[in-house]
Amino acid sequence: MTRTTVASLDEILEQEFPILDHGFIRLIDYMGDESSIVQAARVSYGSGTKSVNEDKGLIRYLMRHRHTTPLEMCEIKLHVKLPIFVARQWIRHRTANVNEYSARYSILDKEFYIPAPEDIQPQSDNNKQGRSGELTGLEKLAAETEIKLQSDNSYKIYNYLLGEDDHPFPGIARELARMVLPLNYYTQWYWKTNLHNLLHFLSLRCDPHAQKEIRVYADKILEIVKMWLPNVYDAFMDYNMNAITLSYQQKNYINYLLSYADLLKQELEYNKDLGMSKREFEELFQHLSSLNKLKETA
Amino acid sequence: MTRTTVASLDEILEQEFPILDHGFIRLIDYMGDESSIVQAARVSYGSGTKSVNEDKGLIRYLMRHRHTTPLEMCEIKLHVKLPIFVARQWIRHRTANVNEYSARYSILDKEFYIPAPEDIQPQSDNNKQGRSGELTGLEKLAAETEIKLQSDNSYKIYNYLLGEDDHPFPGIARELARMVLPLNYYTQWYWKTNLHNLLHFLSLRCDPHAQKEIRVYADKILEIVKMWLPNVYDAFMDYNMNAITLSYQQKNYINYLLSYADLLKQELEYNKDLGMSKREFEELFQHLSSLNKLKETA
Amino acid sequence: MTRTTVASLDEILEQEFPILDHGFIRLIDYMGDESSIVQAARVSYGSGTKSVNEDKGLIRYLMRHRHTTPLEMCEIKLHVKLPIFVARQWIRHRTANVNEYSARYSILDKEFYIPAPEDIQPQSDNNKQGRSGELTGLEKLAAETEIKLQSDNSYKIYNYLLGEDDHPFPGIARELARMVLPLNYYTQWYWKTNLHNLLHFLSLRCDPHAQKEIRVYADKILEIVKMWLPNVYDAFMDYNMNAITLSYQQKNYINYLLSYADLLKQELEYNKDLGMSKREFEELFQHLSSLNKLKETA
Amino acid sequence: MTRTTVASLDEILEQEFPILDHGFIRLIDYMGDESSIVQAARVSYGSGTKSVNEDKGLIRYLMRHRHTTPLEMCEIKLHVKLPIFVARQWIRHRTANVNEYSARYSILDKEFYIPAPEDIQPQSDNNKQGRSGELTGLEKLAAETEIKLQSDNSYKIYNYLLGEDDHPFPGIARELARMVLPLNYYTQWYWKTNLHNLLHFLSLRCDPHAQKEIRVYADKILEIVKMWLPNVYDAFMDYNMNAITLSYQQKNYINYLLSYADLLKQELEYNKDLGMSKREFEELFQHLSSLNKLKETA
Repeated sequence: MTRTTVASLDEILEQEFPILDHGFIRLIDYMGDESSIVQAARVSYGSGTKSVNEDKGLIRYLMRHRHTTPLEMCEIKLHVKLPIFVARQWIRHRTANVNEYSARYSILDKEFYIPAPEDIQPQSDNNKQGRSGELTGLEKLAAETEIKLQSDNSYKIYNYLLGEDDHPFPGIARELARMVLPLNYYTQWYWKTNLHNLLHFLSLRCDPHAQKEIRVYADKILEIVKMWLPNVYDAFMDYNMNAITLSYQQKNYINYLLSYADLLKQELEYNKDLGMSKREFEELFQHLSSLNKLKETA
Repeated sequence: MTRTTVASLDEILEQEFPILDHGFIRLIDYMGDESSIVQAARVSYGSGTKSVNEDKGLIRYLMRHRHTTPLEMCEIKLHVKLPIFVARQWIRHRTANVNEYSARYSILDKEFYIPAPEDIQPQSDNNKQGRSGELTGLEKLAAETEIKLQSDNSYKIYNYLLGEDDHPFPGIARELARMVLPLNYYTQWYWKTNLHNLLHFLSLRCDPHAQKEIRVYADKILEIVKMWLPNVYDAFMDYNMNAITLSYQQKNYINYLLSYADLLKQELEYNKDLGMSKREFEELFQHLSSLNKLKETA
Repeated sequence: MTRTTVASLDEILEQEFPILDHGFIRLIDYMGDESSIVQAARVSYGSGTKSVNEDKGLIRYLMRHRHTTPLEMCEIKLHVKLPIFVARQWIRHRTANVNEYSARYSILDKEFYIPAPEDIQPQSDNNKQGRSGELTGLEKLAAETEIKLQSDNSYKIYNYLLGEDDHPFPGIARELARMVLPLNYYTQWYWKTNLHNLLHFLSLRCDPHAQKEIRVYADKILEIVKMWLPNVYDAFMDYNMNAITLSYQQKNYINYLLSYADLLKQELEYNKDLGMSKREFEELFQHLSSLNKLKETA
Repeated sequence: MTRTTVASLDEILEQEFPILDHGFIRLIDYMGDESSIVQAARVSYGSGTKSVNEDKGLIRYLMRHRHTTPLEMCEIKLHVKLPIFVARQWIRHRTANVNEYSARYSILDKEFYIPAPEDIQPQSDNNKQGRSGELTGLEKLAAETEIKLQSDNSYKIYNYLLGEDDHPFPGIARELARMVLPLNYYTQWYWKTNLHNLLHFLSLRCDPHAQKEIRVYADKILEIVKMWLPNVYDAFMDYNMNAITLSYQQKNYINYLLSYADLLKQELEYNKDLGMSKREFEELFQHLSSLNKLKETA
């Protein structure tokens, strides 16, 4: 008997995937594969599920109906190096295990994040939390230069306060000296979470509204999920990332438009090219009642 | 300075709302009202949100975009009496605080759940976890009688094992004797959770797929939420309970149908009677690109 | 590169360890070994910890000072079969991932727990939640017989209600029929948790005050921990299971007694036979100030 | 019917308690008092606990035996202003609800932490994560000046990057500009947690090993707990903050010393002046077997 393994993940174990200018993601360990999800789902359904005999179908079913507890049976552990302001967003995801580098115990390296020119953008006009638009090359250079100088200078003062430079100053405690370092300095941590919480993290952090500097980490993790659990990845893209939620009012409006239309009624038959299962197709008709009415009058 | 209070909730404090044949829900305490949610959301947005000046709009915005952390600022505590098999489903919601009656310490009362005749139904043909269809009156009576006799009889044996009846048997420990009681016996607990977790509980347990015996508890709690936080209730109904999620494929199909149609193009203008905000209307056009194309050709 | 493995655990993967009369524990998977804990602790301490160069010492240090986050880097997954009343105690440990057999989907097997004669005991006189003392052989037999008959009979009624026996009764839904089954019926689940939460579970459930029927499961899991992480096991036994907490008043009283005594003062020197590190010895003198005073007057 | 209230807390609602140079703690709301804990504990014990009729005794019992779930029935909500490096330690306590000021939405005020002269100390020699010892007045001034200049200067650059100063530079997005601010800048949040998690937070953060800058916040919260729940506070001090844990080896050593001693045996009788209950006294004799032996030979 051996543990469940995934060859494609074993190949990238311990490998450093560079992110931003000095950061990285490194896969340390994982638990489970798609069979682990199916195994856990089947214990819930017991002997009553002989008919659900296709793992992929079961995984899509779980994802579509938000039966997420079987996803918790998979676990992943990453080593991540990231700017402190990114770490501050990331840590808000509470259901994970974390061990972070401590600047009380150790001196931080002189590594800080400088945005690439294409990422230096003005405040967005319509998105209070984002950026959009363009600056001139000179303006970008000015911003980059200021950030760089300020970061460099901070480290000099950090060093001075630690008593690590040539000044005769004897130094103050590490836990105090660190307070002059800006939020673009890099920290690192081991981060471990289960697949359900990971997908929730990705759904928020791969989103276009997430700050780009955390999104690039999330995007890389999403690639790792794709290697690890390809059917979960597909279902996640179809039912979460690329899905939409219609509010009650939006649903009514679409129903109204559809009922209004003189649609070509022969288009209302199920066929495989639609890329969804028969069941999913039928669920759509349940959701959008006007489709049913159109079909009846066809 | 006094704490935030909600008059309509203060009126029902400690009141027992009967559920099923012997169960109840009793509101013990609560923390916060809608202003608490707004207050917490505004600290996130800081001085930058002067324009979002309407609380109701902000609450709907939070709910539509799943910015759920401000909801966690409200808390509710209930005293609930419920059958053990319902308690077993309920306890799966992990992010709550619970103190349950212990049958190791105390003797359970002779109170068990017997389904009302209209709730005694056969196994559903198409829903592996549910019931549907009808039995004859005689068949219902047979089921009811068997459940009742068995429940009565179990309590006799429980009593005997405890040494509480007239037999000379000296009795075994409570923690052992209780094992003969069936799952329809009532237990009770104090249950406390925050609003975000409560709404998640309600979205699963008010759902038609939830077992009826837990749904009746959830439905009553939903009524309490409506009294407590009317705008949250409305937004929850519009963006969660009565909303639908379209998968990538379903979205594409609707887009396809809409583009196919010779819709009356004047219907594509926003108006207030649609019951959604302008912003929500525009988001729909972002989601369903065919609407945009139709509009352009109008 | 390969994942961290523990040979002694790989040998018992998937093996069923029988517990009680029909239950079992089966190790499905695990993540990490002691090096994983050390690795995570070292990232916290960064380059500043070159002096803490012994893994075993570091693990004992973490355990003694309740630096438990590195323990969260290990994870274990078990398949467990257990009586429902045990499951009800177990599930109160909220920080775990669980997939349980569902009696809404499937028919439960006719498997119920009957305590072995030595476990059939009267209510404890001084422990409101426990059992102690002895019954006669005849009394034990009477209890056993009643439990057995009642359990058998319940299954007959369960079968009848499901429409699975020879009666012409058509059957009611599984989600309803199950309510007549008593709490000693077996259920099963996949259960996954991290090492920190596991040790917390064990500290409560290996305790003599835990009900015996859950303690036997906890004891077996503790054995698995011993195979998996021997130094963690030792530290857990020394600093948790076999440790004691002295309240402020108890501490003062011991201090008082020790200061009162005309102890043989040469016993107050550290030596290795005491089984504790020098540091731990010194911490004891910090905690119990009378020891210091004695030493000074020696 | 009205909600449980605590007059002494109602008096300090909304009041700002200043912490550090620009921080504060403000009590926003709370749920429950000591009767709420007792009420929840009693539902666990049911009718079987008539004998435990004193609330204070029950609270001490719960605390001594770590029956912490009834503590979860109390909840507290605070508004806190704190330096970012303190927030980074604080947020590691995951089981709380948080809404933090967002520097993506809003511009941070120019408020940063400068340690008071008495808090500017060198790195501790024997505590890798702490500070101890003294600097000269001139050295303190040098450190203070550097931190102040650097903080001031950072804000200038922040302002420049935001396009908020007189330079013609048009400004970059807030989410980018903030990265130059050092960790001593103040942020603020609403923070809500239950009493069990709060006490865990306090046991770690009121500890002398906690960094002073978080300890001052924890100390103030501990004062609020004392006003809110005086018996919980006393029990917490006696059984947690001022208690000690003896490892298996330490326990054996104390046992050995005590058995060695020619103690005045009349000191081994219980009396109320010891400040502990009879039960607690007896538990001590269970823990330290040598006390029993001494008593027997008295």
